[in-house]
Amino acid sequence: MRAGSEYEALTVESLPARLAGVAALVAQVGPDSTVWRVREVGDGNLNLVFIVSGPDGTVIVKQALPYVRLVGDSWPLPLYRAFFEYHALTRQAARAPGAVPEVFHFDETQALIVMEFFAPHVILRRKLIAGEQVEGLADFLGRYCARTAFRGSELSMRSADKKADVALFAGNVEIPAITEGLVFTDPYYEAEMNNHTNGLDPVVAQLRADVGLKVRVQQALQRFTSNTQTMLHGDLHSGSIMSTARDSRVIDPEFAQYGPIGFDVGMLCANFLMAYFSQPAHRGDDLETYQNWILRVITDTCTRFEVEFRALWQSERTGILYPASLFEDQGHDSTLACDAMLNEIWCDAWSFCGIEMHRRCLSLAHNADFEDIADTAVRARLEARNLMMGAALIHQAGTLSDVGMVCAMARDFNGKDIL
Amino acid sequence: MRAGSEYEALTVESLPARLAGVAALVAQVGPDSTVWRVREVGDGNLNLVFIVSGPDGTVIVKQALPYVRLVGDSWPLPLYRAFFEYHALTRQAARAPGAVPEVFHFDETQALIVMEFFAPHVILRRKLIAGEQVEGLADFLGRYCARTAFRGSELSMRSADKKADVALFAGNVEIPAITEGLVFTDPYYEAEMNNHTNGLDPVVAQLRADVGLKVRVQQALQRFTSNTQTMLHGDLHSGSIMSTARDSRVIDPEFAQYGPIGFDVGMLCANFLMAYFSQPAHRGDDLETYQNWILRVITDTCTRFEVEFRALWQSERTGILYPASLFEDQGHDSTLACDAMLNEIWCDAWSFCGIEMHRRCLSLAHNADFEDIADTAVRARLEARNLMMGAALIHQAGTLSDVGMVCAMARDFNGKDIL
Repeated sequence: MRAGSEYEALTVESLPARLAGVAALVAQVGPDSTVWRVREVGDGNLNLVFIVSGPDGTVIVKQALPYVRLVGDSWPLPLYRAFFEYHALTRQAARAPGAVPEVFHFDETQALIVMEFFAPHVILRRKLIAGEQVEGLADFLGRYCARTAFRGSELSMRSADKKADVALFAGNVEIPAITEGLVFTDPYYEAEMNNHTNGLDPVVAQLRADVGLKVRVQQALQRFTSNTQTMLHGDLHSGSIMSTARDSRVIDPEFAQYGPIGFDVGMLCANFLMAYFSQPAHRGDDLETYQNWILRVITDTCTRFEVEFRALWQSERTGILYPASLFEDQGHDSTLACDAMLNEIWCDAWSFCGIEMHRRCLSLAHNADFEDIADTAVRARLEARNLMMGAALIHQAGTLSDVGMVCAMARDFNGKDIL
Repeated sequence: MRAGSEYEALTVESLPARLAGVAALVAQVGPDSTVWRVREVGDGNLNLVFIVSGPDGTVIVKQALPYVRLVGDSWPLPLYRAFFEYHALTRQAARAPGAVPEVFHFDETQALIVMEFFAPHVILRRKLIAGEQVEGLADFLGRYCARTAFRGSELSMRSADKKADVALFAGNVEIPAITEGLVFTDPYYEAEMNNHTNGLDPVVAQLRADVGLKVRVQQALQRFTSNTQTMLHGDLHSGSIMSTARDSRVIDPEFAQYGPIGFDVGMLCANFLMAYFSQPAHRGDDLETYQNWILRVITDTCTRFEVEFRALWQSERTGILYPASLFEDQGHDSTLACDAMLNEIWCDAWSFCGIEMHRRCLSLAHNADFEDIADTAVRARLEARNLMMGAALIHQAGTLSDVGMVCAMARDFNGKDIL
């Protein structure tokens, strides 16, 4: 690509000629760009995504668009988010080796990343809707969340490095602003871009009348915007995970920012809970088996997170927080401190989890788990359970001492007729 | 001053010739630099401070030194802290008009700020040791803390501006690192630069044996390093306040960073409490009267902080947090949210307060309130009260619903014979 050239969106037709000179791409795919096969597969809202194949292999070429696809060019978005995605991917690769696509090439002007192609992986959300189980999913996700959380915090990082990183990612303004608006604010008032399924009005009214709930949500927003505990993925739902029957990877960290540790794992659990509540519309005889599997994934993800976090606490606690000089070196066990920190993480996580469950049914960007349900009466009934459990999580976040309590709550709401 | 010149520390002798060309200085003091009178008055650890007087007026010239004065050139410190002091002063002036010195000139290369001279103000700590009352002190300090806190947070600021500011101040690495080490960590183990008064060994041993206490202190450290709620002064003790009998100002914000709102007001109260506990060594018949006055200053500072914060909550809540769209526009009072936020601020503040009370007796930089007590047996007895109250504050921070409880606690410890 020509140095200093202006941004121009790629097309299936223009891509081979425009990227023929990118050595890192040629090394993966093969030197003769005239034989490359290019497909555009982006189903997200913010980007073009191409699969580029040649005789030597296949890569993903991802290019940011200067606007939100879902609403057209009326909502412009800065291209610099590719810069943050690139920096997030390199940090995630270092902190959770093997979990995210390898980056082969980054072009800041073109807002373009050439990265590893995963096959035969598909988006996890599609598998959850189709009722497919993924072996090792919970282990992978729990470990990924714990490793990126711990190794991106001052439990592990040098303070100067962490401050420099916080400053870098503080430049990612407009993308986190989407979360601040769509996730934390819009669901709780008549925001212009909101939509919800017919029939949900009474539930929506109930949530918006709950002042205590809104206070808790805004407290969570303050933690999201002000607590730079670790580098978050920032958008860790089942559409940001790709899986085969037994392998999983995490993609799309363009919402990366430093934020509270509980955010990623909370949003992740929310998306599993929404998969859980939507299943009655997607399954037949295997409903109970598959819903039980989803709850087991939630339980095992949280358990694996704790196990990994505690292991890193013992082996990699090299930052300024909870230094050995104050604990182990004085013959004092620091387990009490780790317990307290995990409690705080889960308290945050269940609160973020409940908020994510709300926004996916009330705000702009819904998810296919519910949206694919054509019968809106059925959809509203299932969404109502999801919304009310979200409220319960937000209210009770501080008292949920164990993921088992969350799963029991899910079973309870799954049997309720709210509408 | 020559553009692009290298940093060179000023002296009383070199200052007039070197600064004769600075128009903003000349405008304040007068054009003929040969008649300027220059005195060096720095009693801090990090800087040269000159009073420069001429026929037209007087200014302060403050220049950062490349090392910590107290320990000589063995502890180098970056000159860029003058850059942060300059940016902090301009923000504080905008957020709390009239509270801080006006900046006339800033030279980044020379790490030098020419600023307003306050006369006949003296350092508040000297007044507290001398038993002098300052009219309006609590009102001024409570209002200053509330205004800078509220207006430097996303309760008020545009998110993009706040993120840019967080990024800017994240560059102030080494100065907050002093706080992270000296305040939050060193007191609780045998750090090399520590010192404490003879006789305090049993109290020190008791604090270091208290694992729960150390966990709470490290939780506070995590909030200090990760919670970017607002721009802090960062070093708001009675040596950073200048007063006459009825006027007060805040100086020296080179420790500025974005941090938890409770930090400044907590550190401030700690320094009043240390003044309180040290008084039996400084006063005669007026001891009770003056100690009562100090407690009244603490009470009134906290009360004024709350009143001002609540007023700003009603009148200036223009940021993304707790938007009117979720509360007032739906006919819902947001007082509950303000109450909860103030509770969290005080919980943080009393915890930071207790930690500051510890570090000033156990770590490197002690304060004159105690250090001026020549009789070390008396000093140790008074410091022991202060240290044990610090521990009580850290343990009970979450349950102190009212500043009255803190003052009652102070009266209680003031009557205790711990050693």
